[in-house]
Amino acid sequence: MPSWAVDGVPGGAVFPGDRGLAYGDGVFRTLRCTEGTLWFWERQFAKLQHDATRLGLICPPAACWLNDLQQFEISHAVVKLMLTRGVGARGYASSPDQACTRIVTINPLPPLREQPAVVRICDWRLSLQPLLAGVKHLNRLDSVMARREWDDVAIEDGLMLAGKQEVVEGVASNLFARFGNELRTPDLSLCGVAGLTRDFVLEHADSVGLVPKIRSIDLEDLPQADELMLCNSVVGIRPIAVCGPYRWNDFATAQALQAQWQRTGPLQGHRISCR
Amino acid sequence: MPSWAVDGVPGGAVFPGDRGLAYGDGVFRTLRCTEGTLWFWERQFAKLQHDATRLGLICPPAACWLNDLQQFEISHAVVKLMLTRGVGARGYASSPDQACTRIVTINPLPPLREQPAVVRICDWRLSLQPLLAGVKHLNRLDSVMARREWDDVAIEDGLMLAGKQEVVEGVASNLFARFGNELRTPDLSLCGVAGLTRDFVLEHADSVGLVPKIRSIDLEDLPQADELMLCNSVVGIRPIAVCGPYRWNDFATAQALQAQWQRTGPLQGHRISCR
Repeated sequence: MPSWAVDGVPGGAVFPGDRGLAYGDGVFRTLRCTEGTLWFWERQFAKLQHDATRLGLICPPAACWLNDLQQFEISHAVVKLMLTRGVGARGYASSPDQACTRIVTINPLPPLREQPAVVRICDWRLSLQPLLAGVKHLNRLDSVMARREWDDVAIEDGLMLAGKQEVVEGVASNLFARFGNELRTPDLSLCGVAGLTRDFVLEHADSVGLVPKIRSIDLEDLPQADELMLCNSVVGIRPIAVCGPYRWNDFATAQALQAQWQRTGPLQGHRISCR
Repeated sequence: MPSWAVDGVPGGAVFPGDRGLAYGDGVFRTLRCTEGTLWFWERQFAKLQHDATRLGLICPPAACWLNDLQQFEISHAVVKLMLTRGVGARGYASSPDQACTRIVTINPLPPLREQPAVVRICDWRLSLQPLLAGVKHLNRLDSVMARREWDDVAIEDGLMLAGKQEVVEGVASNLFARFGNELRTPDLSLCGVAGLTRDFVLEHADSVGLVPKIRSIDLEDLPQADELMLCNSVVGIRPIAVCGPYRWNDFATAQALQAQWQRTGPLQGHRISCR
């Protein structure tokens, strides 16, 4: 059985005239699913709706997406939801009545890693676009190009900068740095994707004795950090052991946050009942 | 008969895992075709190859694309060529051996307009990314969002700015402004798409008695311009009569350039022999 559905049709095709393909005109979410439970479903769906609204897309109701997924036997998987502005006439103009395209894909779930992460610092710089910053849209060439900088499988992710100094995020993750009891993550008003796990960490910092703070992190701040961590919805909160020339050996709060994330994800999840 | 082919298959499907859809990881060209002749074929194909290389994509040889098109009965059309990094595993990492996806689409050709254009000034600002500026890649949300600002069919295009003052291009075109005998077009090193017709105008300015110059155009320069024009590969060089609050009634050099473009396009074209 194919591992995707387009507008509810398993194995369905996307047309070359789809604006998702032609222009990256759409949004997406990536969800962790274990034992048939979509982690953090309500938050994820709310974020999908939020991002869709930012682009002026009308997001189909949650039931549509869940029906699409219920056609598959999903136990452990990475589930991706994509919403595009659909197939339109050639050219940038779109019609408000144009039907969006709804796509779900189901991919293998990589095991959670035990070892702290080794990451690099990317040469590629993020594009600046305050009007779309934070939105998880389908224009992701920055991440693609940064990810092309390495093929060493030991390197899990890369830190991306805006300009000369500001470290903004990972290629596929958000960044946190702990300085004493301050847990800092960069502001994403000019660039970057505001991931759901970033919100989770901001909300739970306090339960591990930390004060969350949205404030820029410069390259030269990195060696001063007591802990560095990346996070996303698939792997959770990953402590960093090595980043370019720098080393860390304190992973305590990252691990504490990760334990909370692993407990909370399924609790705030949605169980897909397979047919 | 469907009006597209994917990897040479008429009506072929694009898969949801295609990186062109997932990330906008690809490039494209839009060509004018009249009487079965693809205008400016060699230049267009060279630009496709050039942009593909910028993203690290290997562009299939011209014969592949032409074979794809020869399956259709094409007389007058807008032909679009798209090249994506193909279907890969989930995630940003790509494999160098991954096969690209080659897509051609054939769309109706709008008639060339006689009347000078009415355009607007868009509120949406261009994102800044010097590393990708000039490339016609599939991350086109800026144009999509700017184009959503109007639905008045009398308005043909919109001027897009970077920052507060700099006018960079049209939503689907490049911009020229004539000041006396200087024909100016903005530098595209921070943002914008370097279209083929822009090159044509730069090369032919001199034949209509003008000195081409790559130099920024500020919003406040617009009313001082003697002529304003937009250009792209489908409509050629369009004189502007109205742009927001400003009016022009000199269209002479735009029309002279347009006449040259209409003569040269088919001469530098490639005739598709249909099967």
